[in-house]
Amino acid sequence: MSSTPVAIIMGSQSDWPTMRRATDMLDALEVGYRARIVSAHRTPHRLVEFATGARDEGFKVIIAGAGGAAHLPGMTAAFTSLPVLGVPVQSRALSGQDSLLSIVQMPAGVPVGTLAIGEAGAANAGLLAASILANGDDALRERLDAWRAAQAEKVALEPAIDG
Amino acid sequence: MSSTPVAIIMGSQSDWPTMRRATDMLDALEVGYRARIVSAHRTPHRLVEFATGARDEGFKVIIAGAGGAAHLPGMTAAFTSLPVLGVPVQSRALSGQDSLLSIVQMPAGVPVGTLAIGEAGAANAGLLAASILANGDDALRERLDAWRAAQAEKVALEPAIDG
Amino acid sequence: MSSTPVAIIMGSQSDWPTMRRATDMLDALEVGYRARIVSAHRTPHRLVEFATGARDEGFKVIIAGAGGAAHLPGMTAAFTSLPVLGVPVQSRALSGQDSLLSIVQMPAGVPVGTLAIGEAGAANAGLLAASILANGDDALRERLDAWRAAQAEKVALEPAIDG
Amino acid sequence: MSSTPVAIIMGSQSDWPTMRRATDMLDALEVGYRARIVSAHRTPHRLVEFATGARDEGFKVIIAGAGGAAHLPGMTAAFTSLPVLGVPVQSRALSGQDSLLSIVQMPAGVPVGTLAIGEAGAANAGLLAASILANGDDALRERLDAWRAAQAEKVALEPAIDG
Amino acid sequence: MSSTPVAIIMGSQSDWPTMRRATDMLDALEVGYRARIVSAHRTPHRLVEFATGARDEGFKVIIAGAGGAAHLPGMTAAFTSLPVLGVPVQSRALSGQDSLLSIVQMPAGVPVGTLAIGEAGAANAGLLAASILANGDDALRERLDAWRAAQAEKVALEPAIDG
Amino acid sequence: MSSTPVAIIMGSQSDWPTMRRATDMLDALEVGYRARIVSAHRTPHRLVEFATGARDEGFKVIIAGAGGAAHLPGMTAAFTSLPVLGVPVQSRALSGQDSLLSIVQMPAGVPVGTLAIGEAGAANAGLLAASILANGDDALRERLDAWRAAQAEKVALEPAIDG
Amino acid sequence: MSSTPVAIIMGSQSDWPTMRRATDMLDALEVGYRARIVSAHRTPHRLVEFATGARDEGFKVIIAGAGGAAHLPGMTAAFTSLPVLGVPVQSRALSGQDSLLSIVQMPAGVPVGTLAIGEAGAANAGLLAASILANGDDALRERLDAWRAAQAEKVALEPAIDG
Amino acid sequence: MSSTPVAIIMGSQSDWPTMRRATDMLDALEVGYRARIVSAHRTPHRLVEFATGARDEGFKVIIAGAGGAAHLPGMTAAFTSLPVLGVPVQSRALSGQDSLLSIVQMPAGVPVGTLAIGEAGAANAGLLAASILANGDDALRERLDAWRAAQAEKVALEPAIDG
Repeated sequence: MSSTPVAIIMGSQSDWPTMRRATDMLDALEVGYRARIVSAHRTPHRLVEFATGARDEGFKVIIAGAGGAAHLPGMTAAFTSLPVLGVPVQSRALSGQDSLLSIVQMPAGVPVGTLAIGEAGAANAGLLAASILANGDDALRERLDAWRAAQAEKVALEPAIDG
Repeated sequence: MSSTPVAIIMGSQSDWPTMRRATDMLDALEVGYRARIVSAHRTPHRLVEFATGARDEGFKVIIAGAGGAAHLPGMTAAFTSLPVLGVPVQSRALSGQDSLLSIVQMPAGVPVGTLAIGEAGAANAGLLAASILANGDDALRERLDAWRAAQAEKVALEPAIDG
Repeated sequence: MSSTPVAIIMGSQSDWPTMRRATDMLDALEVGYRARIVSAHRTPHRLVEFATGARDEGFKVIIAGAGGAAHLPGMTAAFTSLPVLGVPVQSRALSGQDSLLSIVQMPAGVPVGTLAIGEAGAANAGLLAASILANGDDALRERLDAWRAAQAEKVALEPAIDG
Repeated sequence: MSSTPVAIIMGSQSDWPTMRRATDMLDALEVGYRARIVSAHRTPHRLVEFATGARDEGFKVIIAGAGGAAHLPGMTAAFTSLPVLGVPVQSRALSGQDSLLSIVQMPAGVPVGTLAIGEAGAANAGLLAASILANGDDALRERLDAWRAAQAEKVALEPAIDG
Repeated sequence: MSSTPVAIIMGSQSDWPTMRRATDMLDALEVGYRARIVSAHRTPHRLVEFATGARDEGFKVIIAGAGGAAHLPGMTAAFTSLPVLGVPVQSRALSGQDSLLSIVQMPAGVPVGTLAIGEAGAANAGLLAASILANGDDALRERLDAWRAAQAEKVALEPAIDG
Repeated sequence: MSSTPVAIIMGSQSDWPTMRRATDMLDALEVGYRARIVSAHRTPHRLVEFATGARDEGFKVIIAGAGGAAHLPGMTAAFTSLPVLGVPVQSRALSGQDSLLSIVQMPAGVPVGTLAIGEAGAANAGLLAASILANGDDALRERLDAWRAAQAEKVALEPAIDG
Repeated sequence: MSSTPVAIIMGSQSDWPTMRRATDMLDALEVGYRARIVSAHRTPHRLVEFATGARDEGFKVIIAGAGGAAHLPGMTAAFTSLPVLGVPVQSRALSGQDSLLSIVQMPAGVPVGTLAIGEAGAANAGLLAASILANGDDALRERLDAWRAAQAEKVALEPAIDG
Repeated sequence: MSSTPVAIIMGSQSDWPTMRRATDMLDALEVGYRARIVSAHRTPHRLVEFATGARDEGFKVIIAGAGGAAHLPGMTAAFTSLPVLGVPVQSRALSGQDSLLSIVQMPAGVPVGTLAIGEAGAANAGLLAASILANGDDALRERLDAWRAAQAEKVALEPAIDG
């Protein structure tokens, strides 16, 4: 497998505080990735170039985050048959409701696997990408299962009263 | 001016019953147009080709209609600096709320002038295109003003009780 | 690979008209699957049994569809680290807005890749499952790309005026 | 009756500032309770164990609070026929609209009595639990009625102008 | 216990097709009830009379259904400390979103346990009422558990393809 | 008092099936009215003329109904200090949510008393107009109170089981 | 006319910062009023007493403000045929959307004239009350018209660039 | 062409921090404009005067921004056949959802080209106005294309990790 099987793209620098949660998760699971800025609207030719060439670059999964009228995940999926995971970035006026609907409501024929609005969604995009890659990588599956087991163990039995 | 200054594009045949209202309006105002199907998701290369070449084809205004995760208007605007007007087609589950937000919530830098959801929006896209073209075409302005005056005159003074 | 790498589960028989779109897509792509009814609320023990044993049954991807307070996809993902794709079935009162939010807004740690509300989402869940499996199956990738190419070719250049 | 007839469970420590309002109310009414963290998604086996054993632990009412794709109340109700009251915790992006719909829109067959989003809902879950228990406990009914009478008396007749 | 421990009230005759699902459930579980029309807005004095006298009539649980600006459940809860369960009836313009918010968003101090919009919510109000009463009635608990077990058994293992 | 103290205006003939409910109510209460079509958008000069002259015509209350981007009630209120009551007509795509927000969310300085979406709102606009006029007309107050008493008496005590 | 023709009621002290805008407006227009706290839920008997006696107290218009499941305006209107104006107070989780729908969506038969969410709505309730009273008070009409003229004059012709 | 072909109008001084983004954009593109305050509700006669005279003042495009029940763009479009672009200003309670629907949901016959809520929408209104004017001004078209090219070049290839 490619040493960087995951591409993480985002519409602008302002999406980074959200999307870094995906990189944190991939780091924890020792999955390689490349993070890039690809704006569907401001750099559409870069989008075409990236998406049509993503398989040749060795990517197996693409994580795409964007906010507002978020066209990046869906347009990426239009140009490649690689699995595309979409992260709706929380927008200013509508709190990501616009981002969510713009990403998830794709017509039949071009899928985007959409995660939750904001940081939780970005973290989960990393986890889902790992889960997808683990189908062909038993060691990764073990790391993923260990991470999940550790996550479960960290949940306290009772709430800390002063928490 | 080009004899067909307006391009009307739509994501699929199913958008036609909505988008034909734009053609009705342009017919009434004697403005030439070309109607095409350009699916942002199913035919993304056609989208790139159309949008990058639209000026050379002689178009002055582009009307783009789409539903659901409606990326066609915004992506067209990403590839051309012609004025792009967006029509949110009424979608099945969310009645066009997804279409509207996917079209109107564009980030700063790439504008789409968005009209109402559904047939009223399509008709108004035709009117707004005519209004834009009338800035350089006094005869069209007169036809437009006459159409508006006729529209006003058609409004009855009192409701028909059995209407 | 297992001959039925995809599990399709749904909360009730009433979800079948939606979820069959996933089976149609998998049939078209020659991907094997098993369809079952697993109700998170009425048969929770069946859910636990299915989800904890899914890997041993040879499944690689799970597609889960449910409506309203749709807990099936998320709870399945809680019990297995296989990739889980969620389909929000259109609900009666709220048109699937409840289904969508119940599926997509998962907390960090347990991802569900969510598709669109209703039939388009179910079809795309089938496509995304195929895309995930194609990472380890070149023949499937070719069938998937051929399906996409055929889909593009079917898009007419101009709307049928009487359509 | 059990000395701790009410179980208060919540998805994570971050729900405690909300859910403590339920404990405040139960303290005021001298109703015993146990508070625990049970994450439907991170500790699903703990959820099964808790819910299937809740009656044997002597609980009569379960209060469950969770946010986002809030599956804890509904899944608890799937595993026990004890009355389950759900508290939608205010979520970050969608202000608890996702929590509310995920909890209240349960299908026929598995009920969750849902309270308001956030602290008011948690306080009312405590009150409703007390009201349910008071059906078999006249002394509690008197305390509850006294609490309500005191609440009414505290309402000033006129607004404090500088309030 | 009273032979009719459950009161089912509704704002108008038009709520009956929804609320009868509660009576169906109570019939199935052999729980006695009385169904009445009490309009918070058109018959407010009847509401006061009913709610203040409900305990003396022997009721243990009140189920209240209403639509639109649905004030019946909350106002009933204001006049009695009996447990009140609210059913948001699906409204014409807003599909019950108004009913739901009007019922569930009660301020701290006066709880209403709210069920889902429409028929599912009415059925579940019946179930939850039974569950509350079963705390003091072992035979009812057994009937309730048997009903739930039967419900689970009725879920087919696989979808009927022609269903 | 003028013999037709109430003006009922609406944006188009298509609003009549809704707005006639206002006339039904005024008929029942023997309050005189005039019904007219005044489109804020298609006949804006008629709007100015009507609103600025409404007091001189003898009107005491204005009922204005409109749908979608419903500007008629608010703009009428901008041109006259007569009390203006707004009725949000149910719109096609958004079921009157757009109509409601366009009418009710007026800025400080220019009020519109807004009623419910659709026919209920129109009927209530008639009732509220009567209530306003009754402040200076004891006979009308008595007719109004009698109407309300009759309305209360028509509410059956129990639901008709076959209703 | 009574020297305090307007009653301003609100559900709790926390509504005062909103509702004082109504008193500011009435002060400016020299209209007398009384402000009281009447909680529909915590003091329902006070509500009944107030609403049924409001006419005998000499009130001509009632302004009622409340938030969340806001039942105060509608229940007041159920007990009196005086004109009732409702102010949806901005709520914490849902920003007043619950307040608005709970107030405005009244069924046919019991009207509440609803103003905007929050302070603008409270100010406008004061203005609308004055407008209603001015039908029988020419001096008030002149003060109202003067206030409106002054408001118009205060609008600058151009925006202050540093504003 | 007029040296100030664009009129920028807004409902109040409080809209200026949003609408100045339109002026920034027009400054960058060397397009002349005039900014004015025109309140549809507080200064309706000024609205009529402005809109009916806008063409004679030499304006070619009108940008109108307003919030809440935002009637300014639509009413301007009712009085002139010039192209009108609407900017929904973010409102306090509803974050601009009311502004958006009030502006975009115009009925067939009177179009408003609507941009995104808030500052992005204002900036894009400036861009779209320039795009419209560029149809008759090649030098402007070149400046616009240069601005867009520069915008694309400013997009970094990778996110700044500490950004």
